[in-house]
Amino acid sequence: MGLENKWHINLQRRYSTGKLNKITDVPGVKVGHFTVQQGDNHTGITAIIPASGNLFKQKLLAGSKVLNGFGKTAGLVQVDELGTLETPILLSNTFAVGTCLNALIDYSLKDNPEIGVTTGTVNPIAMECNDGDLNDIRTRFLTEKDAKTALDRADTDFAEGGVGAGAGMTCMGFKGGIGSASRAVNIAGQTYHLGCLLNSNFGSFGNLRAGDFFMGEALRHDVLARAVREQNPKYTRYLPDKDKGSVVMVIATDAPLSSRQLRRLCTRTSMGLARTGSYSGDGSGDIALAFSTANRVSHTADSAFEVKVLPDPLLDDLFQATVETVEESVLSSLVHAKTTTGIRGNTFYSLADFI
Amino acid sequence: MGLENKWHINLQRRYSTGKLNKITDVPGVKVGHFTVQQGDNHTGITAIIPASGNLFKQKLLAGSKVLNGFGKTAGLVQVDELGTLETPILLSNTFAVGTCLNALIDYSLKDNPEIGVTTGTVNPIAMECNDGDLNDIRTRFLTEKDAKTALDRADTDFAEGGVGAGAGMTCMGFKGGIGSASRAVNIAGQTYHLGCLLNSNFGSFGNLRAGDFFMGEALRHDVLARAVREQNPKYTRYLPDKDKGSVVMVIATDAPLSSRQLRRLCTRTSMGLARTGSYSGDGSGDIALAFSTANRVSHTADSAFEVKVLPDPLLDDLFQATVETVEESVLSSLVHAKTTTGIRGNTFYSLADFI
Amino acid sequence: MGLENKWHINLQRRYSTGKLNKITDVPGVKVGHFTVQQGDNHTGITAIIPASGNLFKQKLLAGSKVLNGFGKTAGLVQVDELGTLETPILLSNTFAVGTCLNALIDYSLKDNPEIGVTTGTVNPIAMECNDGDLNDIRTRFLTEKDAKTALDRADTDFAEGGVGAGAGMTCMGFKGGIGSASRAVNIAGQTYHLGCLLNSNFGSFGNLRAGDFFMGEALRHDVLARAVREQNPKYTRYLPDKDKGSVVMVIATDAPLSSRQLRRLCTRTSMGLARTGSYSGDGSGDIALAFSTANRVSHTADSAFEVKVLPDPLLDDLFQATVETVEESVLSSLVHAKTTTGIRGNTFYSLADFI
Amino acid sequence: MGLENKWHINLQRRYSTGKLNKITDVPGVKVGHFTVQQGDNHTGITAIIPASGNLFKQKLLAGSKVLNGFGKTAGLVQVDELGTLETPILLSNTFAVGTCLNALIDYSLKDNPEIGVTTGTVNPIAMECNDGDLNDIRTRFLTEKDAKTALDRADTDFAEGGVGAGAGMTCMGFKGGIGSASRAVNIAGQTYHLGCLLNSNFGSFGNLRAGDFFMGEALRHDVLARAVREQNPKYTRYLPDKDKGSVVMVIATDAPLSSRQLRRLCTRTSMGLARTGSYSGDGSGDIALAFSTANRVSHTADSAFEVKVLPDPLLDDLFQATVETVEESVLSSLVHAKTTTGIRGNTFYSLADFI
Repeated sequence: MGLENKWHINLQRRYSTGKLNKITDVPGVKVGHFTVQQGDNHTGITAIIPASGNLFKQKLLAGSKVLNGFGKTAGLVQVDELGTLETPILLSNTFAVGTCLNALIDYSLKDNPEIGVTTGTVNPIAMECNDGDLNDIRTRFLTEKDAKTALDRADTDFAEGGVGAGAGMTCMGFKGGIGSASRAVNIAGQTYHLGCLLNSNFGSFGNLRAGDFFMGEALRHDVLARAVREQNPKYTRYLPDKDKGSVVMVIATDAPLSSRQLRRLCTRTSMGLARTGSYSGDGSGDIALAFSTANRVSHTADSAFEVKVLPDPLLDDLFQATVETVEESVLSSLVHAKTTTGIRGNTFYSLADFI
Repeated sequence: MGLENKWHINLQRRYSTGKLNKITDVPGVKVGHFTVQQGDNHTGITAIIPASGNLFKQKLLAGSKVLNGFGKTAGLVQVDELGTLETPILLSNTFAVGTCLNALIDYSLKDNPEIGVTTGTVNPIAMECNDGDLNDIRTRFLTEKDAKTALDRADTDFAEGGVGAGAGMTCMGFKGGIGSASRAVNIAGQTYHLGCLLNSNFGSFGNLRAGDFFMGEALRHDVLARAVREQNPKYTRYLPDKDKGSVVMVIATDAPLSSRQLRRLCTRTSMGLARTGSYSGDGSGDIALAFSTANRVSHTADSAFEVKVLPDPLLDDLFQATVETVEESVLSSLVHAKTTTGIRGNTFYSLADFI
Repeated sequence: MGLENKWHINLQRRYSTGKLNKITDVPGVKVGHFTVQQGDNHTGITAIIPASGNLFKQKLLAGSKVLNGFGKTAGLVQVDELGTLETPILLSNTFAVGTCLNALIDYSLKDNPEIGVTTGTVNPIAMECNDGDLNDIRTRFLTEKDAKTALDRADTDFAEGGVGAGAGMTCMGFKGGIGSASRAVNIAGQTYHLGCLLNSNFGSFGNLRAGDFFMGEALRHDVLARAVREQNPKYTRYLPDKDKGSVVMVIATDAPLSSRQLRRLCTRTSMGLARTGSYSGDGSGDIALAFSTANRVSHTADSAFEVKVLPDPLLDDLFQATVETVEESVLSSLVHAKTTTGIRGNTFYSLADFI
Repeated sequence: MGLENKWHINLQRRYSTGKLNKITDVPGVKVGHFTVQQGDNHTGITAIIPASGNLFKQKLLAGSKVLNGFGKTAGLVQVDELGTLETPILLSNTFAVGTCLNALIDYSLKDNPEIGVTTGTVNPIAMECNDGDLNDIRTRFLTEKDAKTALDRADTDFAEGGVGAGAGMTCMGFKGGIGSASRAVNIAGQTYHLGCLLNSNFGSFGNLRAGDFFMGEALRHDVLARAVREQNPKYTRYLPDKDKGSVVMVIATDAPLSSRQLRRLCTRTSMGLARTGSYSGDGSGDIALAFSTANRVSHTADSAFEVKVLPDPLLDDLFQATVETVEESVLSSLVHAKTTTGIRGNTFYSLADFI
């Protein structure tokens, strides 16, 4: 990310990164964005397609964890009960959850004519943050077509920062958004991949940490000086702000894990957030979803089947890799997001402007 | 309901019913329906307005419980974290959740210009069942305007049975839908009201119980004979069916309860379902939400405040009343729902046709 | 149990019972009792050995559910996290939990010299109800040796009623205690066994239900008349009593289920309780633990392994069998428990005295 | 603690510490230790008396959170259901949980003759870590009398480090044990106190962090060199070790919080652990319990009563103070614990030896 060289920051990486250092290093995972930067609307949708093939007919194992439930993510009730994921995951703004659900339903209906006829329904997953500091969220600008565009654009590489669902997000007083990272982990002679994609929209100005460097504190004066110089209403009127706004996190892995074990990964995401300076403020909906591509569960299975899982004592490296990728995803979102001026003249600066 | 007189059924009511024997016996609660019976579409929306006044600015305490999570209800994440309800509740079909969320957002934005500007967002609640046995659910027929209509129609009395969100629901092999009941309970010298409204769409044919009478078993032959006579494709092709389809339940009370205590009420709803013959089948998303009108939590509270609560040892009557009202609401939904023919020629019979 | 013939009760059994109609119909499960009936002490310990072999080295999958948490059962934290069971299960009175934990630790240490040296510790499971209505619970009469005796006596057949942990329990105003039942269920061409063992100590006098017969109501007058005649202090002074006192339930099966699925079984136990007239009163700690003998998880597994599981849509019969065995176990406990006079001259009558 | 001056570490304290910088800065809280350093036994018990007066008759509000459930803490089932704390809290080693439960029962029986007679039972809380690296845990050395001694010694000041339950604990490859810290927080014109006491027994060697300093990495060479020089079997044979062993944390505050809000505090404790380098390894049972002294709940309340609570948006400072005190408590435990040689010749070094 450049952070480490420029600032001599020690991020203490315990594992090598994947080829792209993104969630798409997990084979089969694809990501696409639809981005709006138009008038007072700075928002968008990010689609994660967790695996190839028909997800409804061949589900993935999944687990979730609500670290702080001041959030409106939809679809977790069924993930928790059945331990499966059967649609792509859409990230967007808080008031686009309904629209994303609708888009995912249509996406699933198209390929599965039996849904709602000879079989049950489908459980779409929509995760959100509030981008109201930069985006005119009240207009509910995003459409089902926009969601479909994000899904259609999903590919093995993708942009980070103020793109897709990250277009209007802010984090630690800087411009936030989409960040991603990955690790390769060796367990019992096998190399597994674990990746994180998150939408950063949390944290108090001045609290940002990167590895062993308290960056928020170090940059505080420079940022405020620029804000005063530029008469930036957000900073000068509202600071000091509070840790609020939410972060939604998706963890992908090709390691064979049960839904219970994937939930254990999710629990560790809070520790990655903590490394960046979060204390999970009241208003910060911190929510994680994890899936594994190693097992597929057939929708029409009619007899007992085998699920491959790692023993729990071998999960430590995946736990630590989860913490690392969450931390690095936050930092990556900040480094990639560009300075953005949005509604009410609010400007959020890019961290990259200060390093 | 007539059930008791006709069949000499003992429902063992321990408490007197409210004036209407409906959830609206809890002062302030209003219910409205939007019903579609058009071609292959038999669906609708039911709105519950839990209290008068601005719910976002003066929230209610609330709790929820997922008894069986094969469901897509949205909004519970925040209810569980903050223990508050800040919008009306919409019930609908599975694929209308997104539309209902959108409608509730607009409903809240209209009265609260500060949402998304000077304060955070709002947490809408949409609960669902799958009405695909009678309704062409794949068309996603319902619109945000329909939801608004249901909200606008909310009143202190309302119809039960195949109306609103219940239009296309089926239960225990009969036509199901909206049912409601209420009780008046005396605790420590005070009379409190507790009401239930649910959308019944669960249970296996033959399993229906009413008090001390195994009604499903008793009616099995008559129902099947009629189905054969009428060449009813649903019964003759698909029976014996399984307990699937879901039930969503809303419990209202004016007793002063904390969110933790309201969650305890929700837990008891499964016992009311059991009395009607449910075993909470795999596909049955059994989900409960409870709220109390006794305390209002100000959105802008800026110092410590007092919450009035009952001691837990005094909750037993409310627990038992919850069980009773859930049981009676299911039976009431069945008695009020009329025989309906829907998509693919499926006909579900009214229980009332057989008593 | 005799109940059905005598009273023409319809219990609506959907499945055939196992050979003994007890939890030990699940191959490998053994049960043993240590019973105290001595002075004011009417208490005991019941041991469930869930499978043969070294449980610590070859664990079982398990899940739990706290239906109502007014209880002191110990060991569930780890069951919930890891999804495994690694010791026998001990049932006892509330103040013997610590003693049972100690006994299970010693039991595990004896066969596993590596515990606490080269490997971690062990997670004992102790479940409890309060037998203070008949037992001088304050004396903490039970010893670790008594627990060991219960474990040593574990066998494939065992007594029900006021024995072991059930010695001093009361249920629905009658003498309660240990009850058990089992079912044989056919799924995908395989016959699986599911059994329940519970310690009944819950429910309000007058509320007892058995199938389609409201037995509590029917017997109310006879019981009270006898109590007055015999100057029974408990009934005449304290009635009407409240639903309190707790029930702990263990479900065993040889069906291949994951810990998540076993937790789903546990959730259905509340529906079995409801069939007997429970509304899960404030003071009734209703807690369930389920295990499957179909997979063994090696303590020293060092690479990925296969777990055999049934598809969730095939679980319905196991859900319904869970409800049935819980219901029948409660009734069986009541039929087998004999009239007992305990501390303070309290006498609880056997249900069998009235049928 | 000296850490900051010596190493120029920035801990980024946002709040002033209490007078003692210990949990006992919360008025009414007392702590006592019973310590064993005898032969192969290095263990003990730490008692926290959360408030003055009869806790059973005048309960405190409490909440808990299992961050990682590889642990055997007992008593949380009822805390989660009822939201109250009614006994002192005992910390000890894993195999002393039963003994601590027994001691707390006796403690409560002594002052409350009605328990088990005219009222129900009592819910004791015992939290544990595995001290088997230094202590001969298999001997189950601790007695009920020892627990009583710890309770009797409870006072407003107390020692930290390898004392009480911390006698045999190890953390991040150093000698761990009891640590504590406190903060004074201003909310809405009021000053509230929040304190943490924990027993540190977690973490991998080399991972220790303190503020902006990666201490584990910095000291790695020195520690290993000493271990080789001293032929310390633990380090030379078993390193690199894994994050296992557990940490139990108690948060006390005089801020008026509901049980739900106290649970929210508990959730943030994982972020404090993360700041010290934890990733919550598989074997690390990370469990938190929080209580508030601001409301007392009468055991015999027979009508509705008022509970004073802060609005959730005002909790941020308490969240951040929780993170801070957990972090500082871990570091304080390490600074205060002295180098200790235990069973099998294992020696764990004091962090203080290296600074």
